Amino acid sequence: MGAERFAALWGSLSPVGRVGDDGGYVRHSWTDTDLVCREWFVEEALDRDLEVEIDRNGNLWAWWGEPEGEGAVVTGSHLDSVPHGGAYDGPLGVVSGLLAIDRLRERGVTPSRPIAVVVFTEEEGARFGVPCLGSRLLTGAYDPAQALRLRDRDGTWLADAMGRAGLDPDRLGPDPERLARIGAFVELHVEQGRALDHLDAPIGVASSIWPHGRYRFDFTGEGNHAGTTRMADRHDPMLTLAHTVVAADVAARTHGAHATVGRVDVAPNATNAIAARASAWLDARAADTDTLQKLVDSIRQRAEERARHDGTRVAVATESLTGEVGFNGDVSRLAALELNAPVLPTGAGHDAGVLAGHVDTAMLFVRNPSGISHAPQESASDADCAVGVEKLTDLLARLCQ
Amino acid sequence: MGAERFAALWGSLSPVGRVGDDGGYVRHSWTDTDLVCREWFVEEALDRDLEVEIDRNGNLWAWWGEPEGEGAVVTGSHLDSVPHGGAYDGPLGVVSGLLAIDRLRERGVTPSRPIAVVVFTEEEGARFGVPCLGSRLLTGAYDPAQALRLRDRDGTWLADAMGRAGLDPDRLGPDPERLARIGAFVELHVEQGRALDHLDAPIGVASSIWPHGRYRFDFTGEGNHAGTTRMADRHDPMLTLAHTVVAADVAARTHGAHATVGRVDVAPNATNAIAARASAWLDARAADTDTLQKLVDSIRQRAEERARHDGTRVAVATESLTGEVGFNGDVSRLAALELNAPVLPTGAGHDAGVLAGHVDTAMLFVRNPSGISHAPQESASDADCAVGVEKLTDLLARLCQ
Repeated sequence: MGAERFAALWGSLSPVGRVGDDGGYVRHSWTDTDLVCREWFVEEALDRDLEVEIDRNGNLWAWWGEPEGEGAVVTGSHLDSVPHGGAYDGPLGVVSGLLAIDRLRERGVTPSRPIAVVVFTEEEGARFGVPCLGSRLLTGAYDPAQALRLRDRDGTWLADAMGRAGLDPDRLGPDPERLARIGAFVELHVEQGRALDHLDAPIGVASSIWPHGRYRFDFTGEGNHAGTTRMADRHDPMLTLAHTVVAADVAARTHGAHATVGRVDVAPNATNAIAARASAWLDARAADTDTLQKLVDSIRQRAEERARHDGTRVAVATESLTGEVGFNGDVSRLAALELNAPVLPTGAGHDAGVLAGHVDTAMLFVRNPSGISHAPQESASDADCAVGVEKLTDLLARLCQ
Repeated sequence: MGAERFAALWGSLSPVGRVGDDGGYVRHSWTDTDLVCREWFVEEALDRDLEVEIDRNGNLWAWWGEPEGEGAVVTGSHLDSVPHGGAYDGPLGVVSGLLAIDRLRERGVTPSRPIAVVVFTEEEGARFGVPCLGSRLLTGAYDPAQALRLRDRDGTWLADAMGRAGLDPDRLGPDPERLARIGAFVELHVEQGRALDHLDAPIGVASSIWPHGRYRFDFTGEGNHAGTTRMADRHDPMLTLAHTVVAADVAARTHGAHATVGRVDVAPNATNAIAARASAWLDARAADTDTLQKLVDSIRQRAEERARHDGTRVAVATESLTGEVGFNGDVSRLAALELNAPVLPTGAGHDAGVLAGHVDTAMLFVRNPSGISHAPQESASDADCAVGVEKLTDLLARLCQ
């Protein structure tokens, strides 16, 4: 496939949800923008005579062949973004899946199993806080009763957001029959580092996903006047938060891991008032669960020490925790052998990581020259994306016959 | 005046803008809530046969006597609040001013000068970022052209907010004739510390206001993926911000001053993305301008050092800067002599501090047993407030005859 052909389909989606100021994307699940993205997918699928269905958790499926058939070969990714995210994280896997079906047909492949392109819901967790929500609900890794208690930052319930889009939130939950019919899952994704760029390779194959946890640190102090309150009389939660951010950086470097505080919420957030409350979200990842635990323990311990010093309080809640995922099955081995591509681990979570516990799964990465992801500078050339489509087609062709 | 009588008028205003969750107040200038507060004032003034006018900067004046007369005796404060602020900061001075007019009349005082109660606009700067905006515009301490460039956090222009309330923003600016007609200004205010509580005194007189600056620190880094970006490759502005918060605390303690970061803004503010940008507002105060300058210089220097270390950038803008205000005129001396009350400095800025450069000015404080201000726990007893009204009446009686 030529780069122009990739660019044509890509260009039909890329204006949706792009924000003016920085060129980044805001495509939060179940918003109007997300619904436009979902409509785009449905139309593209119908144009290809694929049968479209929405599962009980809001994931979209487009079938070539019988949806009820056994041993299905499924590819796809997600369409939602982080706030002001890049263009490729998610959509590249969906667009590549649709184009791979075109290429399979052009190559005259006659599948002996059903093939599907899937769009998973709320992969980023940017709106409701739980990453890979759609695939976790599907596999039973997330309790639907808990999902009904999720609210976005504006206080909108997940159930209301889904209901507005015509879904029945009472049907949320595991779907073991659907899962059992999937024989192989392949997620193609933009790389979120520069390893392929350094290796001069357009495509890579994932070996594993690092363990990953998200933790909310809630700091409580005493709101007071910034001008009149002596330093010695303060109980300033912003100060405890700041020391915790510094501790997370030091601990990550010490443990050879990744720790990020990218989100905070301060109340009342006024220039001339000492904060009464402050929250920080810690994103922590490490090569193994033992290191991850040590990393988080050391940050938590430092936050608690500092809270005692500052006369504040800290409560830590684990919002999500995912163990290491190894892509060790036949599909991954096949990908590594057949595609002549380097094999790499990643620190990023994906729906493929959730599915890997249930379905023989592989992940392909497309080179990202900027190495940047979750930000507008995320990049991939049309030429590399077209190579990605061809490699994905090669793998699907092997799997479906 | 009895405590019950104070409580009756106080109770007619206190439900407005009180928020359910913490009992704090959100009365941001020119919002619907603020307009209800302003209507309350106009009605109370008209009930007392006072002549009400709105000046070109949106400040409200209620006159007993001829507004155009010379040597007017003015008292008052403001009705706007910080987000989730206390009940007393501002409104206590307005309610006490109205009640003092009642008491002057009951005492049979026949003023030989006009008397007014004033409500200054946007004293907290909570909506548009510039504290004492109404009194600064009146006195020429703030450029009206700059005021027209002020926007709130939602992007609403000050001009539009004022226009919606029926004001003409083109008329903003200094009002020297009005200022020249004021012979004395007295602001009564809740104390914002516990000095009067420690001294067992219901009322105090201000000696001075500490110099005060507000500074915005804008940190710029590189947004990226929290899971895949190596610690060594990061340019995380949240980390520079955290080190700056810690530096502000250390510097304030070192210099015997006050430094607060109570407000931050992070973008994109997502759990799984390294921030691209972060801003922190520094509120800094010290007993003299030299110490204030040293304090801010040392925080700024530390932020710049740390930005170099983190591979981020920092830009510092001074949003406001006010020198020391001494209340040294005849009105303050009279207050200190006549009211038999302790004399104290304060770290908080007030419209009285702005007016003091132009008008003979005094400030009275009413005891605050919690010592807390700019937070819901701010307090004053009805009995102390009633004493405040009597003392204010005593002072106004001396000044108007």
